Amino acid sequence: MILCDIGNTSVDLFRDGKRTKFRAEDFDPATLPDDVYFVSVNAAFSERIRGCSNWHDLREFIDGDKYYPTMGIDRIMVCEAIDNGVVVDAGSAITVDVMQNGVYQGGFISLGLRAAEEAYGRLSPALDVSFNFEVDLAKMAKNTPDALSVGFLAPLVSKIESLGKPLYLCGGDASRLSRFLQGAIVDEELIFKGMKKLIEKGVKC
Amino acid sequence: MILCDIGNTSVDLFRDGKRTKFRAEDFDPATLPDDVYFVSVNAAFSERIRGCSNWHDLREFIDGDKYYPTMGIDRIMVCEAIDNGVVVDAGSAITVDVMQNGVYQGGFISLGLRAAEEAYGRLSPALDVSFNFEVDLAKMAKNTPDALSVGFLAPLVSKIESLGKPLYLCGGDASRLSRFLQGAIVDEELIFKGMKKLIEKGVKC
Repeated sequence: MILCDIGNTSVDLFRDGKRTKFRAEDFDPATLPDDVYFVSVNAAFSERIRGCSNWHDLREFIDGDKYYPTMGIDRIMVCEAIDNGVVVDAGSAITVDVMQNGVYQGGFISLGLRAAEEAYGRLSPALDVSFNFEVDLAKMAKNTPDALSVGFLAPLVSKIESLGKPLYLCGGDASRLSRFLQGAIVDEELIFKGMKKLIEKGVKC
Repeated sequence: MILCDIGNTSVDLFRDGKRTKFRAEDFDPATLPDDVYFVSVNAAFSERIRGCSNWHDLREFIDGDKYYPTMGIDRIMVCEAIDNGVVVDAGSAITVDVMQNGVYQGGFISLGLRAAEEAYGRLSPALDVSFNFEVDLAKMAKNTPDALSVGFLAPLVSKIESLGKPLYLCGGDASRLSRFLQGAIVDEELIFKGMKKLIEKGVKC
């Protein structure tokens, strides 16, 4: 059994505890003979899979009422990985979601680190600087890079911390964020854990 | 005496308690015969003023050590307007600054409401929605517009509230933000109050 997370630009395979990443445009789904359970946010790639009978869409395993209709399937999967706590998926956007006894409590979406940096840069050449990840978020800033870093990170980190524990972090920027979030569990395989849990249940949930 | 706030696109005059706004590109500084005290973030316009002896740059009234070298002059002016408290200037960026007994304590810069909305829209067509200003920031969201509104506004509002009182709000989005900030004083003329205070002191401060 192969698990597969299909993003807009990449195809992330999880097989026998190992991950392999491919560019979505280069990857031919017909090369995999085994059963593949996938989630996809890439409509073009989903279209290419349609003819492959060994590719199974995990969206069909989800009870729509548990989440909300426009919620990203990758976001749903990381929620499915946990029963209690907060999940932060720090990718191009940063999604923050709360689960309680396996029931979805809601969440919010922040800009991803890169998207936020780029948005500052678009406002003014003076704000076109990188975040300082060494900054002390408890202090008010007295230079431009710190003012942007505190401005974006301090409110977000405080809000996440106010939501309770345990706190799980995944996504490409999980490590960079984790230094500000005491006790956070960085788990890059959270999405695959959610997928596996869903398959093991074998019913809509 | 005329006070003048020169932005990238507009020239905002304050004369006898009244404000008049002009487009920066249309405005001829030579048409004003009186003494004009100005702050400018518009280098091209500042160049056009250079020949006018009745135009006085208030940047020269500021002690550079009190703030930091790259801090916007408009941001410094709203700080100068108060001795104690928090100033939020909600424009294309949202600047948040803390003053204590007339001494600058530091601050941070968040994206402006429009810049944030646009940055979400750039991430995905699914996130290209307007903020919902009726949203309850205390609740986790269960639809896309609320997830973005809570994601951007709830962390920012909590952080601002944690900085203490009194809280002053100015800038084009002051009113929209004020509904989330209990007890905030909306004062659209804060920049001119800072300018006036500085002139009255008549010395570097």
